This record gives sequence, C-alpha cells and structure tokens, in this order.
Amino acid sequence: MNNAPIGVFDSGVGGLTVAREIMRQLPAESIVYFGDMARVPYGSKSKDTIISFSRQIAAFLMEKNVKAIVIACNTASAFALEAVSDMVDVSVIGVIEPGARAANNATKSKRIGIIATEGTVKSGSYSKVLHRINPDLQVFAKACPLFVPLVEEGWLYDEITKEVADRYLYDLLSYDIDTLVLGCTHYPLIRRTISKVTGDGITLINPAYETAKELEKILEADDMRADGVNVKNEYYVSDGADRFKKFAASILPSDIDNVNYVNIERYESKC
Amino acid sequence: MNNAPIGVFDSGVGGLTVAREIMRQLPAESIVYFGDMARVPYGSKSKDTIISFSRQIAAFLMEKNVKAIVIACNTASAFALEAVSDMVDVSVIGVIEPGARAANNATKSKRIGIIATEGTVKSGSYSKVLHRINPDLQVFAKACPLFVPLVEEGWLYDEITKEVADRYLYDLLSYDIDTLVLGCTHYPLIRRTISKVTGDGITLINPAYETAKELEKILEADDMRADGVNVKNEYYVSDGADRFKKFAASILPSDIDNVNYVNIERYESKC
Repeated sequence: MNNAPIGVFDSGVGGLTVAREIMRQLPAESIVYFGDMARVPYGSKSKDTIISFSRQIAAFLMEKNVKAIVIACNTASAFALEAVSDMVDVSVIGVIEPGARAANNATKSKRIGIIATEGTVKSGSYSKVLHRINPDLQVFAKACPLFVPLVEEGWLYDEITKEVADRYLYDLLSYDIDTLVLGCTHYPLIRRTISKVTGDGITLINPAYETAKELEKILEADDMRADGVNVKNEYYVSDGADRFKKFAASILPSDIDNVNYVNIERYESKC
Repeated sequence: MNNAPIGVFDSGVGGLTVAREIMRQLPAESIVYFGDMARVPYGSKSKDTIISFSRQIAAFLMEKNVKAIVIACNTASAFALEAVSDMVDVSVIGVIEPGARAANNATKSKRIGIIATEGTVKSGSYSKVLHRINPDLQVFAKACPLFVPLVEEGWLYDEITKEVADRYLYDLLSYDIDTLVLGCTHYPLIRRTISKVTGDGITLINPAYETAKELEKILEADDMRADGVNVKNEYYVSDGADRFKKFAASILPSDIDNVNYVNIERYESKC
C-alpha cells in the first residue's frame, strides 16, 4: 500500500480527460494535477521547449512526493517521456503507448488514422510505436491545429467545428482507415462531432482509458496501490485558475475549488 | 542622432505587422524584434502572467541597448504598458493609444467597434482610452479567440474564416458602428475577409500605422532619430525559429535569416 498521490500533467485542461479516467478506474488513488495554462498550447512548440517545460513540471510534482507521473498530454508524451523518465525515480507513463495498443487491438483492416497536434504528428511517435507493436500496420496521421481552440471556444457540437473536421479528415478518410486515434486530450470533447464526419465504420480511440489501465498494472506490479481511505485530488496551474475551474466543471464529475497557482518557471528543468 | 535600435516585441509573429510599418515609415531605424513563440498566445492569459512575461522581455531588450520599446501586442499593451514603463528608462509605446486615436479620427457616427483577444477586451483598455479622448464615443467590444489560430493555420481568405467572422461580428454590426479597430496584430492579415463581412460602410483601423507615427514623434522630440547609415534588423524568439521565419516571409517585404533563440525565462521580471 502506498497513499502517495499520482502526478498528472498537461499543457492545460485537456489532460483532465485522463485524470477523469484514472478517477473512474482507480477511485482509491489521489491525484496531483498540474495544468500549464501560462504556456499552453504545447502542440505548436519545439521538442526542446516541451522537454524543458515537462522537466520543470516533473520537478514540481516530485516536490509533491508523487509515486508515479502520468504525462496526460500527447505532445509532451511524444517529445518528453524519455527526458522525464531519465530525471525522476518513479514510473512515468505517457498516453501514446497505451493509445497505440488500443488502436492495434481495435483495427481489423490494419489501417489506422491518427489526429493530433502538429508536434505529435511531426514526432512520428504514434507511427513508431504502432509499427513496433505490429509492423504490418499502415498509419496515416493528420495535424488538426484548430481543434484545440474550437474546444476552448466551447463550440463542441457546432456546424463550424463539423466543417473544420470535414476538411481535416477528408484525406484520412480516403485511405480506408477503420480506426482513428484521438491523439490529443482535447479531442475526446468533440468526439461526437468527429464521429458525424467519420461515420459508423470507424472506431474512435481515446487513449485515456488504456492509460489508466496501464497505470493500474504498474501500481499493481510494484505493490503500490492506495488504500482509498484518504482520497484527495489537488489541482495546480501556472495561470488562469478561474478559467481552469470553469473548464474542469465540464469535464470532471463534480466541481473543484482547490486550484492553486504555481510559478512553474522557478523550477529547474534539470535533475 | 542615435543609432541604437528600437525594441519591438510581441507574443509571436503578429507584431511583425507593426515592425513592417516602422520599417516603412522610419527606414533609417534599426529594429530588435522579440517574438515569444514559446509562450504564445497571450490573449487568453491573466494580467499578472502577461506583466511577468513582458518584463522579462523588456529586460532582454534593454540588454540589447534599445532606445525605445514598442509593445506590438494589444494584450501586452493593455496589461503591461505601465509595468514596463516603470521598469525601464526609455520610452515605451503600446498599440492601443495610437489605435484609439486613429479610430476617433475616423468615426463620424461616434460608434466604434473593437475586435481583440479575450484579454484585451476584458481589460477594457480601448474603451478607457477612447472615452478619455472623447467622452461622447460609444464603444462596443467583442473577443474573437479563433482569429489567431485561423491566421496561424494560414486560412486567410477561407470560407470557414468568413463564417467565423460572420458569427463574431453579428452583434457588433447590429450596433451601427462605422469604425472597427483590428485590436490584435494578427487581424490585419485577415483584413480582406473581415471587410467582406463588414461591407463598405465600416472603416477598418489597423493601429500599426499610427503606432509608427507615434514612435516617429517621440524620437523627433527627443532628438533620437537614427542616421540610416547602418540599418540592421535582428530577430529573436523563445522557440520555433523556423516557424517564425516562414511566417515572417508572408508579412515582411523580404526574407529574414538572422532569427536567434533566447531563453527568455532566464530573465528577471523585475528592475
């Protein structure tokens, strides 16, 4: 038994879709969540910058004595999983490996589409992991930079969002994929609009579910499950606590009030 | 005569529309431009965060011995003009005061619209300055968060951009404005699409032109004009030099190659 919290971080609010899944599957665990609202978004920024940001956040989470870190951001998982793992002595889990496994399990045609940020697509991470799992897969990726701002504008079921999705997915759909990975934590929030474009024949994969499963396996293997007696979730942001709270209310099952500010730039991005 | 450069900064590439105007009107002056590509956008972030970012950048620019600072970002002008002015001993010019003056000169109906980021709109800065200039003005403001990502996606003359503009401007147009301030440095890049929605009866104001005029006046008054012998423009970014160069090519009259990286978080946001 180990009642230390799980550290979960993201560029902003999107990672709450992963935190929500951890809460569902592992209700005995406590979470310390960090959202980097001052420097969001990550999807258009370089590998070096994302590594530096991710390490500062890992340093903060280690100060909170977390027993594991979940990188609940696809771009940070793509660019910084190794750098963060090298820096800390707890298990570090990204969302890409679990997402890729779920996609491989779902596909029958062996043709998988990935939609994600520019950074995640450019990194080629999903493609690499999928080909390691199964070299026969064919993978087609497309960056969708407007999806995050559309979600943040709250236009989740909007005709304009559907038109943008039509345009972004047009090429992907012509490749006869039967599985589409929602490779950014914001995208599950427009899942319904995306599925209007993809239709019934394509399975949408949200890596959050598999990520929580993976976390459970690791805690189990290390005999580090919490006893569920004093479950407590804490939220930290580098800016915009009110904005974060408002958005959280639309993702999490109950309102949150304990959102605290952290000056994340004060943390060293080194060991 | 004073051949020190003018410091110009923005959250990213948008401020190049202001730098371009300074180059046009004051070709004898050199510019040191900083684009905060690692932390872009500013429009959705809090006043405290924007002040902290702006002061770090001012510290960097002062190290480059600039003789004046132009805050070529509406959000930073709205939130941090005073904080930066208090910190440095050179003149600091924002884009809001010049933009407001231009709008007041243009309007006949005394009804002015402002489109800008969430931060600029919430600050109420345009409204305050316009009412100081002329208490009889009626000012209507609307935040347009999707315009920046649409510009960065390159959908400048796109049907989807027009639909988004239709939606954002619908209320403003019902107020019978005759003048509309493009209160974010990205917006002049979709001026043509915006004007399709506003029609011929509304004058669009780009604060960049008046900002360069204001800079000229200040340099003139302080007897600090450059002699134009060794004009040199330098560009610095906190991330994404290649992305910056590519975007710059679509804004500036000639390609740029001297884009350098700065670790801006290392600068103190204090005097």
